[in-house]
Amino acid sequence: MRVRLAGICSTDLEILRGYMGFTGIPGHEFVGEVVEAPTRALVGRRVVGEINVPCNRCSLCRRGLGKHCTRRTTLGIDGRDGAFAEYLALPEANLHRVPDEVADEEAVFTELLAAACEIPVRARIAATDRVAVLGDGRLAALAAQVLSLRSRHLTVFGMNEAKMSALRSIGLRARKTGERPGDAHAFDVVVECTGSLGGLPAAAALVRPRGTIVMKSTVAAPVRWNPSPLVVDEITVIGSRCGPFDTALRLVAMREVAVLPFITAVYPLDRFETAFRRTRRQDAFKVCLRIPG
Amino acid sequence: MRVRLAGICSTDLEILRGYMGFTGIPGHEFVGEVVEAPTRALVGRRVVGEINVPCNRCSLCRRGLGKHCTRRTTLGIDGRDGAFAEYLALPEANLHRVPDEVADEEAVFTELLAAACEIPVRARIAATDRVAVLGDGRLAALAAQVLSLRSRHLTVFGMNEAKMSALRSIGLRARKTGERPGDAHAFDVVVECTGSLGGLPAAAALVRPRGTIVMKSTVAAPVRWNPSPLVVDEITVIGSRCGPFDTALRLVAMREVAVLPFITAVYPLDRFETAFRRTRRQDAFKVCLRIPG
Repeated sequence: MRVRLAGICSTDLEILRGYMGFTGIPGHEFVGEVVEAPTRALVGRRVVGEINVPCNRCSLCRRGLGKHCTRRTTLGIDGRDGAFAEYLALPEANLHRVPDEVADEEAVFTELLAAACEIPVRARIAATDRVAVLGDGRLAALAAQVLSLRSRHLTVFGMNEAKMSALRSIGLRARKTGERPGDAHAFDVVVECTGSLGGLPAAAALVRPRGTIVMKSTVAAPVRWNPSPLVVDEITVIGSRCGPFDTALRLVAMREVAVLPFITAVYPLDRFETAFRRTRRQDAFKVCLRIPG
Repeated sequence: MRVRLAGICSTDLEILRGYMGFTGIPGHEFVGEVVEAPTRALVGRRVVGEINVPCNRCSLCRRGLGKHCTRRTTLGIDGRDGAFAEYLALPEANLHRVPDEVADEEAVFTELLAAACEIPVRARIAATDRVAVLGDGRLAALAAQVLSLRSRHLTVFGMNEAKMSALRSIGLRARKTGERPGDAHAFDVVVECTGSLGGLPAAAALVRPRGTIVMKSTVAAPVRWNPSPLVVDEITVIGSRCGPFDTALRLVAMREVAVLPFITAVYPLDRFETAFRRTRRQDAFKVCLRIPG
């Protein structure tokens, strides 16, 4: 594929700090145009791609757990050059065609939105459940929208006023963590999207006894924490990583989820240093790299 | 109630180290004989008792989450004198009559066995699932037996040879942690009963991607650990504390679970210091205190 547009993700920032020990071309969020493929009909099509490439032979692959294949490569993360480049290669089985009504700047969110779509697949969420989304970044913005389709009692807990304003402007309820004492242990489901070390302890402080925490953040450093409250309060913690691309593309095509408000900036590929600096700023949602065609 | 027999639990050892900041009479595993009760028919009966006493008025109580009532007292753990004494008091609603065919030395395991019985209530376990029980203590011995009723592919991972021999003598498969490289990430469900700081990381090393960890240990000290593998491997962690007393009593009465092999020693109440020392030894299962009647 020729890469048209690529997104910078927190994982990319962690990788530059040494996470996964990856060397090569990073980047795993992208929209591309197929230039060469065994299936001729794909050539010229706009596509997004699932990032894990399993061996398709081991016992995990045979159980349908290819995303966890221990011999897998992962685009721009592990053993496979990624999307911050003019071209990249993936197996056809990984590709999803982008509907014409979905712009590049929308489709570039597919991988991240898919991860958000997985949350209600793994955690049962009732319409009456009080749901907290912890974090005010890119993933929090998408997770909050996806979960708002299930529960009308959703609150985003953030830190950055500018980002929380953006979340409020699309109709979400957002407030600062720790602002109201009544929030403690008041939520049936807490989705941890902070991307930070303090995420899990903070989630444990919001969730009710017998409630559910969905954990999304991967960080390079260890945290010092006593997990006993999970036992005493009988909490369920669900670790979640990837999700269904087809659901994500459908939600964007049907305008059920707004992603364009969360494009902070688009830079040409050769200004990648500026783009990474912009991503690191507290007020940044999604920063993209456009690859000149 | 007049206390007939009381069991010493790891939580009692943690309490002596400062866990919960409890002051008062410890002890929460007991068999008693009712001496005074509003329901006259209870007087003279042998009973065991659930240890949490909820307020029955708050929103958690009204949702059926009385065991998590923030105003609850807990026998010998929080705000309520416990069972290492001649007499104790609990509401009638907490009591369960002990069937005649169940001896005191069996009934004293009810609270612990109930906690084991809760594991398959919270975690779905298929007959074909590979199940690991991590730990070779009292709770591990009971959890392994309860889970063997669900899965025939169960392995106990222990440290102490004498305790593992005892487990093998009742037909369980037991081996040392780390003995076989093939055990890594090979189990669908891992039940963490180590009672130690290293339990959760060790469980994460045994469970397969998308598998389930049931966490039972509460410890006073924090652990330094990176929880990212839970996200990457998409693990579900279920914290679990209390369980159904009626199920536990039925399993003992029907001889589905053997508890007598796990009585290590019984001391009279005035030899409590010796009894606590015996409990601390690596080879100890359950040490009890008999209260002279």
